[in-house]
Amino acid sequence: MSDGCVYLVGAGPGDPGLITVRGRDLLRRADAVVYDNLAARSLLSEVRSDAEMIYVGKQASAHTMKQPDINALLVRLGMEGKQVVRLKGGDPFVFGRGGEEALELVEAGVAFEVVPGITAGIAALAYAGIPITHRNVTSSMALITGHETPDKEESDLDYEALANWPGTLGFYMGVKNLPKIAASLIAHGKDP
Amino acid sequence: MSDGCVYLVGAGPGDPGLITVRGRDLLRRADAVVYDNLAARSLLSEVRSDAEMIYVGKQASAHTMKQPDINALLVRLGMEGKQVVRLKGGDPFVFGRGGEEALELVEAGVAFEVVPGITAGIAALAYAGIPITHRNVTSSMALITGHETPDKEESDLDYEALANWPGTLGFYMGVKNLPKIAASLIAHGKDP
Repeated sequence: MSDGCVYLVGAGPGDPGLITVRGRDLLRRADAVVYDNLAARSLLSEVRSDAEMIYVGKQASAHTMKQPDINALLVRLGMEGKQVVRLKGGDPFVFGRGGEEALELVEAGVAFEVVPGITAGIAALAYAGIPITHRNVTSSMALITGHETPDKEESDLDYEALANWPGTLGFYMGVKNLPKIAASLIAHGKDP
Repeated sequence: MSDGCVYLVGAGPGDPGLITVRGRDLLRRADAVVYDNLAARSLLSEVRSDAEMIYVGKQASAHTMKQPDINALLVRLGMEGKQVVRLKGGDPFVFGRGGEEALELVEAGVAFEVVPGITAGIAALAYAGIPITHRNVTSSMALITGHETPDKEESDLDYEALANWPGTLGFYMGVKNLPKIAASLIAHGKDP
């Protein structure tokens, strides 16, 4: 039994000031940092100069390291007794696959902690000065993945339920699928 | 024209480490801080000893200061040229009435900036180790107010749409209305 720990830290939506105080403190103390493309790059200057830095770089269409390999890497580093920060864009649990990483760590008996981050669907609107909820206008908001598992033949998204949703809808990673998403919503009765 | 500015800052879900780095920096520099009950109290120790501290204390059933008075207070402090932090629990725009405060500031010509915060609906599940989204399990999540404007005679919530929603549902400020919310969802076909 090691006393390593893996921290699944949300880096926030891009502005380095929008990481949490706890997230930045952990980043400064980490023995190893596992990061990808989505994180605010300037946060990496907070990391100790002798810390191990591992880039697993995800982009929309190119994964430098596959998810099972990332999971195995986190388990190995934790088993070595290291304090590991897994830095992820936004929030680790909002379409961030943090759940899969957490599961693997649990199964391997490696201690972990989740440090939430500001999720882009809320922050992007805030930066545009648009509240995602507003009293007497929207009583609800929904965040939906716009990028489903590529091996799915058909979308699991229930466009009828989405089209009838009474509040704000926010799609994540939906740029590539945007025409399809918009057409499907309108086909199910959403006001264009 | 003054060069005052009002920062609508999300304090996060309660743990003082979950405020953003930018939020804490602003709190440390502020001339005036307007705060309520929901904010992590220990964050107030970050405030300059000569800063003006104004408690407007909201609780579920007792508002120390009514929302229009809070709006007017923020406008006045901004007009006086102060750097003002309006510290709010969670995120200012997720059921936090930050939109109303922002509107008033725009109308009065007072500069403002929104600094997002970690919203409780996402963080609470993360702390329990439960991802609010999980690949192949939930592709969407919804956050809904469980506490509507008290002067509404009937709920604006479309329980049929909510009951048919395919993803996770998170109700905010719903403790008092929980029996009604659960009964309404089940009545509209949600699996108990």
